Amino acid sequence: MIIRPNQNWFIRLFAWHGSVLSKITFRLSLNVLMSIVAVISYRWYEQLGVHLTIAPFSLLGIAIAIFLGFRNNAGYSRFVEARNLWGSLLITERSLLRQIKSLLPDEPAVHQKVAKLLIAFSWSLKHQLRATDPTADLYHNLTSKELAEVIASPMPTNRILLMLGQEIGKLRRQGLLSDITFELLDNKLSELSHALGGCERLASTPVPFAYTPDPAAHRLPVLQPAAFCPGDRPALHDTVCFGVHFPIPSYPGTHWPKSWRILSAYRPTICR
Amino acid sequence: MIIRPNQNWFIRLFAWHGSVLSKITFRLSLNVLMSIVAVISYRWYEQLGVHLTIAPFSLLGIAIAIFLGFRNNAGYSRFVEARNLWGSLLITERSLLRQIKSLLPDEPAVHQKVAKLLIAFSWSLKHQLRATDPTADLYHNLTSKELAEVIASPMPTNRILLMLGQEIGKLRRQGLLSDITFELLDNKLSELSHALGGCERLASTPVPFAYTPDPAAHRLPVLQPAAFCPGDRPALHDTVCFGVHFPIPSYPGTHWPKSWRILSAYRPTICR
Amino acid sequence: MIIRPNQNWFIRLFAWHGSVLSKITFRLSLNVLMSIVAVISYRWYEQLGVHLTIAPFSLLGIAIAIFLGFRNNAGYSRFVEARNLWGSLLITERSLLRQIKSLLPDEPAVHQKVAKLLIAFSWSLKHQLRATDPTADLYHNLTSKELAEVIASPMPTNRILLMLGQEIGKLRRQGLLSDITFELLDNKLSELSHALGGCERLASTPVPFAYTPDPAAHRLPVLQPAAFCPGDRPALHDTVCFGVHFPIPSYPGTHWPKSWRILSAYRPTICR
Amino acid sequence: MIIRPNQNWFIRLFAWHGSVLSKITFRLSLNVLMSIVAVISYRWYEQLGVHLTIAPFSLLGIAIAIFLGFRNNAGYSRFVEARNLWGSLLITERSLLRQIKSLLPDEPAVHQKVAKLLIAFSWSLKHQLRATDPTADLYHNLTSKELAEVIASPMPTNRILLMLGQEIGKLRRQGLLSDITFELLDNKLSELSHALGGCERLASTPVPFAYTPDPAAHRLPVLQPAAFCPGDRPALHDTVCFGVHFPIPSYPGTHWPKSWRILSAYRPTICR
Amino acid sequence: MIIRPNQNWFIRLFAWHGSVLSKITFRLSLNVLMSIVAVISYRWYEQLGVHLTIAPFSLLGIAIAIFLGFRNNAGYSRFVEARNLWGSLLITERSLLRQIKSLLPDEPAVHQKVAKLLIAFSWSLKHQLRATDPTADLYHNLTSKELAEVIASPMPTNRILLMLGQEIGKLRRQGLLSDITFELLDNKLSELSHALGGCERLASTPVPFAYTPDPAAHRLPVLQPAAFCPGDRPALHDTVCFGVHFPIPSYPGTHWPKSWRILSAYRPTICR
Repeated sequence: MIIRPNQNWFIRLFAWHGSVLSKITFRLSLNVLMSIVAVISYRWYEQLGVHLTIAPFSLLGIAIAIFLGFRNNAGYSRFVEARNLWGSLLITERSLLRQIKSLLPDEPAVHQKVAKLLIAFSWSLKHQLRATDPTADLYHNLTSKELAEVIASPMPTNRILLMLGQEIGKLRRQGLLSDITFELLDNKLSELSHALGGCERLASTPVPFAYTPDPAAHRLPVLQPAAFCPGDRPALHDTVCFGVHFPIPSYPGTHWPKSWRILSAYRPTICR
Repeated sequence: MIIRPNQNWFIRLFAWHGSVLSKITFRLSLNVLMSIVAVISYRWYEQLGVHLTIAPFSLLGIAIAIFLGFRNNAGYSRFVEARNLWGSLLITERSLLRQIKSLLPDEPAVHQKVAKLLIAFSWSLKHQLRATDPTADLYHNLTSKELAEVIASPMPTNRILLMLGQEIGKLRRQGLLSDITFELLDNKLSELSHALGGCERLASTPVPFAYTPDPAAHRLPVLQPAAFCPGDRPALHDTVCFGVHFPIPSYPGTHWPKSWRILSAYRPTICR
Repeated sequence: MIIRPNQNWFIRLFAWHGSVLSKITFRLSLNVLMSIVAVISYRWYEQLGVHLTIAPFSLLGIAIAIFLGFRNNAGYSRFVEARNLWGSLLITERSLLRQIKSLLPDEPAVHQKVAKLLIAFSWSLKHQLRATDPTADLYHNLTSKELAEVIASPMPTNRILLMLGQEIGKLRRQGLLSDITFELLDNKLSELSHALGGCERLASTPVPFAYTPDPAAHRLPVLQPAAFCPGDRPALHDTVCFGVHFPIPSYPGTHWPKSWRILSAYRPTICR
Repeated sequence: MIIRPNQNWFIRLFAWHGSVLSKITFRLSLNVLMSIVAVISYRWYEQLGVHLTIAPFSLLGIAIAIFLGFRNNAGYSRFVEARNLWGSLLITERSLLRQIKSLLPDEPAVHQKVAKLLIAFSWSLKHQLRATDPTADLYHNLTSKELAEVIASPMPTNRILLMLGQEIGKLRRQGLLSDITFELLDNKLSELSHALGGCERLASTPVPFAYTPDPAAHRLPVLQPAAFCPGDRPALHDTVCFGVHFPIPSYPGTHWPKSWRILSAYRPTICR
Repeated sequence: MIIRPNQNWFIRLFAWHGSVLSKITFRLSLNVLMSIVAVISYRWYEQLGVHLTIAPFSLLGIAIAIFLGFRNNAGYSRFVEARNLWGSLLITERSLLRQIKSLLPDEPAVHQKVAKLLIAFSWSLKHQLRATDPTADLYHNLTSKELAEVIASPMPTNRILLMLGQEIGKLRRQGLLSDITFELLDNKLSELSHALGGCERLASTPVPFAYTPDPAAHRLPVLQPAAFCPGDRPALHDTVCFGVHFPIPSYPGTHWPKSWRILSAYRPTICR
């Protein structure tokens, strides 16, 4: 995630990186072009006898507004959920280590082993969500046998969780953990499983197509210049001015199915 | 669920499959027809002395907007809930298997049995929600006696959960599980029961009729052409233009009681 | 709850049962009457020199829209909460029976007893919420001594829960349940207590009066005909048209404190 | 909380008690006064050459609407949270008593003692939230020694919870409760602690000042009469009409920081 | 957090401290300046032949309104989450102490030790979130050895939690706590870990840049005076009036990424 310095509002007017502007440059210039065409063809258009007013746009605007607002909220709530899941990962890993340390203070080898598996779990989840190769990052935290097993698995991150489970199962059979303290640790593993499953769910389920605004959202700004034009002279100047400014707040939503992907993909790095 | 490739925005303008357009074609053409009638009967209408303006529509629009926005949110939150329930199914099944494997590492027959029952549980829930025949999918995962029992049951999926409960109850009586480790596994069964009950609830409870917009939502776009018409010439051209574009964003909601069904029905396959 | 067949949108235009229309017939006809009066008294009104425009209504509309939207959301979220509570009742009862069956597979008398008490619990809660007489439905599931005790209790449903608690307390003293398995079952009773308390809370707490829109919501549509009228001729026809259509989407909210009651009262039957 | 009888909508138009009207009478009459002044000074104002239109108000209205809607939602969600907390108090107290009764059926003295402490807990929380004197209500439920201790404590309600904890701690040391059944009861005390802490949090944290609409919300209706006035004659009559009606839905929010206090303060009595 | 006295609404009109006004003074005067320039250059501007109307602003307003409303909600929900986390800290610390007191009533030294560590935990979290030096506040609650360890740690607050864990681990090894009562206390430490992790998450993750309204929000009020101007005389006076009032409700959002920081930073002190 890109965390920006707290710039002055005036400088932020020209911020480019991370802004949605770079992604809609083409559409924006298309709109400006259309506006210019409308202004130029003004006289010819008037003789045609076709008259459009601004009225339908104001009515359509309400419907578009609902969709844009909905998309904004849905996208943000996905972001918040992803952030919470990753945060709960951190919290659970800390708690698990704290429990191991208070239950088995004299077993530094166990602390090491569990810590390494937890680190491997985080790295592996990050790479799974970003669809990158985890080998380099897992190398230092797993034995070569474990690494081979994880790499070969179709669900590598879940496999590491399974290893953690076997590790604490072994401690229980060795008599280092009672059933109750085993339960305590196992509950933390279930929480990790929850975070893992939640992240996978977010990554594999975009917002369904039915909730993305129908192409009307695209057609609206394209038609607008035509509507502003023919009324009277003032409208002509509105057209150009509007052609540039209107689409900025209304387009962001249109990339949204893509942008949530970016967000969820970027997440892991932030929290490391 | 239909996950679409990340098409260019321009191509998406013409996307048809999954779009709501196919479902409102008739209503849409009705609107266009009405607009054309309005434009044609313009002169005759003017002599009639009936004058309608756009003003009431702008006021009505606010009320309609509330209903449409509400429906969008309610539908989406149902979708999210269904997705979460199915996701929690996966998470819980993984956790349950992990626990069995760490508690009883030397009982591969138990692992097999529990895994098969869990797979049967997922398949059965899928078929129950879609109201299809589960026999073919359950065949490989249940013994013929179990299968007969499940098929005969009025609530087949819950019956499989009961079998899982009896399985771990047997392990406890055999002394393989203590009361505490039994509790650990049984809690997971309760979570599965939660996912099952939640899915059934979503499938059996549509959003109540009182919250679907009253037919006013339908009447509004039908009346609009009449209103745009008589003002002056420009309005005439607005009418046609508007007759095509306005209904697109305002209709989707009207199928909503149906579309959520589709969503919840499609859900199981996604996550398999 | 009334679950309607998936009718064609055209037929739904005339749906009456379950629609809010039947409840606002009087107010609606009052509005139409007022509109007709406005159109008739048009000339006289003009000579009076009082001129009203549509402008204030458009401003007021925003405030009204907020209140209507808010009420819709608040009402629906109450409905969803009630549905979830009742769903959790079902889920918990299933889980409790499953646990009893896996813990005490050889005690069919216990299964019977617990199942009967659970059924009585559901019936009693239904009757408590609807304020109807539970005797007939409880008769088959409780012994005559228990029935007398429940009927005499000021909180009959909670009394049945208490009996369930005593039942499993007895099993524990008989040595059939250890402390841990007792805990497992008792947690389910606490969940039932949660569902019971939640339903009682919803039934006894309407949305506070301060959040119901002030009578302005009523006054607005009554004043509107007067405003539309005097501008010019077209407005006259708007007035009549509007007098019929506007109130439809704006009134539903006004019964809302009543309608949620109906909803929560109807709930129990659905889920049986 | 004031629960009103389900009056006819027509009678409710004139409801005063519990309505926000009584609190804005002064501001409302100020507005009416201002409108009258505007109408009277009409001619003089026109000669001044200052012309204001309704346009900026329509734009400002959007911003105001956001703030009013936000405040309504935030206030209601605080109400719902407070209601849930108090509801969970009731549920937890019931469950705790049920557990005591099934675990120790032959210790009526313990039942008595715990019930009395729970009643004292509810009363004390009520008085703490309303900042009233709890002595009279605690007198019957606590021994004189306990009462003195509670009254002297800076956090009286939490002190009663502590006593409950010591009570069940004593039962455990007497061997009446095992560790596991102690855990069961102690979890309920933690839930009570949650309800207590949540109520305290709501009572001590109003919505921050930054989220209360800036005084613009007040200035808007004051300026409006001036704007309506000078356009033309009809606007004059709008002004008076509007001066009375507009502020009604827009003012409620302005007392909101105060009204939530009333709500949370009124809560305890309702649920007794 | 600044909790204001419940002032009269009239006095609040002029409230400055805590209001967003102080932060937008510069931008506001820029707007007023621009309006004045617009009024002065009115005649020259008219001869230029460029005509702008208010229409595009009304359309743009919808998009801006969505963004402002979204930001308000997102900011407030972060505030509420932060408040809940800090509240849960208090609740958990109380519960932990209550448990210690009922489990080990005869070990005042343990009570002291745990209480001191909990106090140190709260102070340390406060200083960590505000990025201030915790030494002075920790000095009284930790031994010099512990203090050195905490100060040296990269995550001082989590280190104190670790010490708490070791403390109760020691009690378990001394036989003062059974596995079950250890579990009871350890669960409270996990809750503290949750509150700690949640606070860290809020402090390190601002709302992503993509959700801050594009600079259009800034450009809009700057362009407005130009638009109001040229229509006719009345608009001139609107311009000045509007130049002062409009930006007030629309600007607050623009500092929002900053203001949430302030909120989360201010939180700890409130609740002490």
